[in-house]
Amino acid sequence: MNDIAGRSRVVIEGVTPEIDAGRFLIRRAEGERVVVEADIFADGTEALACVLRYRKARARRWIETPMAPLANDRWHGEFIVSEQGQWDYSIVAWIDPFQTWLHGLEKKAEAGLDVSLELLGGAAVIDRSRKGARGEARKKLTTYFQALRGDSTPAALALTERSKSKADDAVFDPTVHYVEPPSSSASSPSTVRLESGGATMRALGDRVATGTAVADQRNRVAIAAAEELRDLMAAHPDRRFATKSSRTLSVMVERERAGFSAWYEMFPRSCAPEAGRHGTLADAEAILPDVAAMGFEIVYLPPIHPIGRAFRKGPNNALDAGPDDPGCPWAIGSEHGGHKAVHPELGTVEDFDRFASRASELGMEVALDLAFQCSPDHPYVTDHPEWFRHRADGSIQYAENPPKKYQDIFPFDFECEDWQGLWNELKSVVDFWIARGVRVFRVDNPHTKPFRFWEWMIGQINAEHSDIIFLAEAFTAPKVMYRLAKLGFTQSYTYFTWRNTKWELTQYMTELTQSEVGEYFRPCLWPNTPDILHEYLQTGGRGAFMARLVLAATLSANYGIYGPVFELCEATPREADSEEYLESEKYEVRHWNRSSQTSLREFITRINTIRREHAALHDNRSLRFHSVDNEQIIAYTKRGADGEDVILTVVNLDPAGTQSGWTDLALDDLGLDAHEPFEAHDLLTDARYTWKGARNYVELDPGVVPAHVLCLTRREAQTDHMNGAQSNA
Amino acid sequence: MNDIAGRSRVVIEGVTPEIDAGRFLIRRAEGERVVVEADIFADGTEALACVLRYRKARARRWIETPMAPLANDRWHGEFIVSEQGQWDYSIVAWIDPFQTWLHGLEKKAEAGLDVSLELLGGAAVIDRSRKGARGEARKKLTTYFQALRGDSTPAALALTERSKSKADDAVFDPTVHYVEPPSSSASSPSTVRLESGGATMRALGDRVATGTAVADQRNRVAIAAAEELRDLMAAHPDRRFATKSSRTLSVMVERERAGFSAWYEMFPRSCAPEAGRHGTLADAEAILPDVAAMGFEIVYLPPIHPIGRAFRKGPNNALDAGPDDPGCPWAIGSEHGGHKAVHPELGTVEDFDRFASRASELGMEVALDLAFQCSPDHPYVTDHPEWFRHRADGSIQYAENPPKKYQDIFPFDFECEDWQGLWNELKSVVDFWIARGVRVFRVDNPHTKPFRFWEWMIGQINAEHSDIIFLAEAFTAPKVMYRLAKLGFTQSYTYFTWRNTKWELTQYMTELTQSEVGEYFRPCLWPNTPDILHEYLQTGGRGAFMARLVLAATLSANYGIYGPVFELCEATPREADSEEYLESEKYEVRHWNRSSQTSLREFITRINTIRREHAALHDNRSLRFHSVDNEQIIAYTKRGADGEDVILTVVNLDPAGTQSGWTDLALDDLGLDAHEPFEAHDLLTDARYTWKGARNYVELDPGVVPAHVLCLTRREAQTDHMNGAQSNA
Repeated sequence: MNDIAGRSRVVIEGVTPEIDAGRFLIRRAEGERVVVEADIFADGTEALACVLRYRKARARRWIETPMAPLANDRWHGEFIVSEQGQWDYSIVAWIDPFQTWLHGLEKKAEAGLDVSLELLGGAAVIDRSRKGARGEARKKLTTYFQALRGDSTPAALALTERSKSKADDAVFDPTVHYVEPPSSSASSPSTVRLESGGATMRALGDRVATGTAVADQRNRVAIAAAEELRDLMAAHPDRRFATKSSRTLSVMVERERAGFSAWYEMFPRSCAPEAGRHGTLADAEAILPDVAAMGFEIVYLPPIHPIGRAFRKGPNNALDAGPDDPGCPWAIGSEHGGHKAVHPELGTVEDFDRFASRASELGMEVALDLAFQCSPDHPYVTDHPEWFRHRADGSIQYAENPPKKYQDIFPFDFECEDWQGLWNELKSVVDFWIARGVRVFRVDNPHTKPFRFWEWMIGQINAEHSDIIFLAEAFTAPKVMYRLAKLGFTQSYTYFTWRNTKWELTQYMTELTQSEVGEYFRPCLWPNTPDILHEYLQTGGRGAFMARLVLAATLSANYGIYGPVFELCEATPREADSEEYLESEKYEVRHWNRSSQTSLREFITRINTIRREHAALHDNRSLRFHSVDNEQIIAYTKRGADGEDVILTVVNLDPAGTQSGWTDLALDDLGLDAHEPFEAHDLLTDARYTWKGARNYVELDPGVVPAHVLCLTRREAQTDHMNGAQSNA
Repeated sequence: MNDIAGRSRVVIEGVTPEIDAGRFLIRRAEGERVVVEADIFADGTEALACVLRYRKARARRWIETPMAPLANDRWHGEFIVSEQGQWDYSIVAWIDPFQTWLHGLEKKAEAGLDVSLELLGGAAVIDRSRKGARGEARKKLTTYFQALRGDSTPAALALTERSKSKADDAVFDPTVHYVEPPSSSASSPSTVRLESGGATMRALGDRVATGTAVADQRNRVAIAAAEELRDLMAAHPDRRFATKSSRTLSVMVERERAGFSAWYEMFPRSCAPEAGRHGTLADAEAILPDVAAMGFEIVYLPPIHPIGRAFRKGPNNALDAGPDDPGCPWAIGSEHGGHKAVHPELGTVEDFDRFASRASELGMEVALDLAFQCSPDHPYVTDHPEWFRHRADGSIQYAENPPKKYQDIFPFDFECEDWQGLWNELKSVVDFWIARGVRVFRVDNPHTKPFRFWEWMIGQINAEHSDIIFLAEAFTAPKVMYRLAKLGFTQSYTYFTWRNTKWELTQYMTELTQSEVGEYFRPCLWPNTPDILHEYLQTGGRGAFMARLVLAATLSANYGIYGPVFELCEATPREADSEEYLESEKYEVRHWNRSSQTSLREFITRINTIRREHAALHDNRSLRFHSVDNEQIIAYTKRGADGEDVILTVVNLDPAGTQSGWTDLALDDLGLDAHEPFEAHDLLTDARYTWKGARNYVELDPGVVPAHVLCLTRREAQTDHMNGAQSNA
């Protein structure tokens, strides 16, 4: 054991966030906060000092910020990640001889004991820090050193009001603080509770500061307690035997869009202005202003690649397609090319470029679909048969879920001998579209490809580009979904689509945002997808669509809808008990009346505007659910990083009728005073209510608007607003 | 990425037990069980095979045992550690192509599809395993290979009843099993639920086994499902791309005494047969048969070293001792020597040897106290002043808790420049007593010495001796106590002494036995110590002592009492609101009437006998609390490793009066049938009750016996026992 290790007495353990012992990074968007906690303690009862260190990866110097004790030896610190890329963080802690000494001195002085030896002992502690200080600090520490030894008079100290106020902007101010073990007995703890500084000593210090120059022991005690000395000692600590946390941990900081986005999925082939024609990318381009006007940030297109003919599916997933049936976009590859080509009926790669440029002009990004599978007609099948599994007769193994066969799809064999060739080729697909400006990918069924492939591919892409977003479409076992997020997926589909009751939503969103999962898994909530038309939407009507939209858009900073079926409240399933759409766009070209009077576009626009304007909705970590005495009404808040912006969302989950109830808000969590009125401004209806206390009446009619999205602000009590029970407009 | 890593598709994460990412070992006693769990999953829906591997550290070969799936991708395995020393464990998991293929074949065959290509595919899977097999197994696999290809007839296969029954003693039988993600929708999971084997196919296999030789496809399917083939394939898996858990974890296996022990603390100086004389080790030796007769396994002596004179404490911790006051045994060191010497008034080192030999003859071990601190008269103080902190005047810093001074004690300075010299000397103290045959040490205040010191010292001792037990006397913050256990302490004092209510006991013992803490922290429960006479004992009388004894002895496999004050129900505090004993043996010589009529020795003997005879009480992991509808009555069970021995302890926590209530036993946990009567045999009173179902009446009078210690056994319904409500004798 080396000399430092042998004398490092502080223990740091239980650091959070730390994912799988540091195997994986946590994830943040630019400007977000990282809260770090750890169990930190030492033998004995001496005072500890703990700092959280962070830096941009590979930066030369750490930035340090003090940690403060919570309870039960748990310490807390936090920092903001101000730019993209990898950041590192770790903890350093040490025994603070100055604070330890000062506390003992205080107790002895209060007990009226002779402390002349203690003052000399303190001088020795200062002496050690003094030797490590420079310039003005060293001069001042020398003065204190001499004063405590009695070599100089306090008058020599620049103990002015200025120096005392320095404490306010101190860079470093470790707090002396011990917490008793939770024992019911007074005799069990051998630790003691300390408070930083003593009022008596501060009073003495004040007296010295005002200029009295009595060089007696009592005044030397007061000098020892000077705020300036405390700051100087904190800035020049004796860290010879400091302990570092055992692992340097990292956070991947991505661009803002990774953490806050509204997605809009649409099929370009259904974008022709007239019915009966196969739409093109040019037609889709013409729709973009409408999508942008609704406030979406990402337009996501299902695969735009050539569609295979072999075993092509017909309308409603029929096994036998007619000669004019357009096929399923996920059956990728034909004689016109594969994953790097554009389906001829949609246009050309240049048409895609124009589409993407137009989206960009409108402030949106285009997301492409990465579906790593092939139609039997894909060029890979003939060029690289070694990338597929083969049946005993030499034919290529199609996808199956026995006894079901999916003969239009050939999965890749990731275990094949040329797996490296396959991986490189698949990465080259991503590179191809990145080179054309694509920065966002929705990944189809990532959970049916190896985890190591994704870790490798996303790692490679990240190393070359800092701004690529991957959305994992994995509807599978929770741990598989979480693993994909750990491996690098920026955002993830969730079970939200099937979580409709208050209990389900509360339990699920609490798991996603308040557990360790929230450190790396970014939920992207979709009320519908081309594969999922939930019964709630099938039967709930317009109110159900509005409720699910509000939930998706406010429960998570990232959400999306599959339109225009969503805004048109399309709700007919293929058959009873099916979650498939009737006449799904997956298998045929549809034509939509986007300007229908019944469209939810205005409502969607309002929701997206609220999302953009309110910082509270840009992150999920502040999500808190609040009680309502009606199981059909859910209420939750989010709070902006500065604590000021507070959004309370209240949703009637019953699409069949009006529901009312009383809230029980956790006001302390919201920075609101239980005894002062506050304003609840409904951002959906612009109604303003004056509320007071935790208990407030809500009533929501799904036939009008099934939700409140309320901005809560402290206000002076006013008499021009009705107090108490309120109903929405 | 190497070829294996790239194709290793299985993920193993969340392995438990794993303490601080493998930084620390878990702890077991010889013969105990280690239960290992992990999240194990892969991309796709193929079948997995998982084995738990374990071995004595540095052994050449791993022993493997199959793991079985629980739910939500969690897998379970376990092994028994059969001998002392360090053992390692890890997990290996891989995709099982045979089970995957067999399941698909089954589904297709059931659906009546042509499976000729599938049968050839299966032959290819068998072929790969065949090449790795030898002897008889290879021959058999070849036969199956040919049969599935249609090259041979089933008659060539030894498909007899014998080969089918092999499944019963199969070494390895991985179960194909997928669990649906917890989604409320039928459409969300892309995984499916499989059951191992199909009844239809078994039936077909049976037909083949009886000798029908129809070489059609149908029969080849039946051959594929043969149990023998399944066993052969399981024994010769294709593990080329297997995944190993990322860390090899370890368990420290100690001797049985580490996990099961009853301690008896006594002051030798109070062992003189006549009052008024300072007892000797020879006097203490004469007491040993009494202690052994009560059933204790460890006799623990407070420090037996020379006691200092400087600042010696008088009776009741008085600051000024009279010339004849014997001093406090923890003020170690005088002109007669230090930690390697025996206090002259107690005798010589040879007297200690005789004492220890006698204890050994009686089946007991002697525990010495390691109190690493010095009286000012300790030889170290003059020989090694560098091992202590010094005050500004050059004097040595005494212990203090400002403003309190403990001038009779000098703590060591573990941060001193010669820390390595100090550490080596302290270890030599332990070595000295180990050389004299001591195998058990009670360590005084380990939490005031550096963690690294203990880790180093215990590590060194463990490397040289496999059988040394260290009990940590740390009454401090919980995380500090847990850390000491992680670092190597065999057993630990706890907060039990201050946990008296049902809620406190339940919460605390659940934390200690059912959380990760239970993997490395062995609680040793003491109802009293020389420092702690709890108010419950001060006021509760004999019933309180009995209740606390039963709790300590049955809640934990390790417990101890400080006697004879305990068995004599000595309960007078030094003053009101104090937990110190009046006229404590810490500061004076006492004389005890060990043969008092009111002694609890018979009761203690009974308890210790029950402990020895019942395997259920030898471990804490099976501890389960059961509801009783009376807050004054606590009920809990323990169950032996074989599941047979079940002990239900019921204690009336109210020493003031009789309490009664109805139990609500979790019978499923106890292997008892809710509809069959069972016997509850009270091991304290020998009463036998016939109980049935969860709900049973209990009534306990602290004036008689405040507890039941019931052995529960299944029995045939009998009519000669009263059913239902029972009271104790």
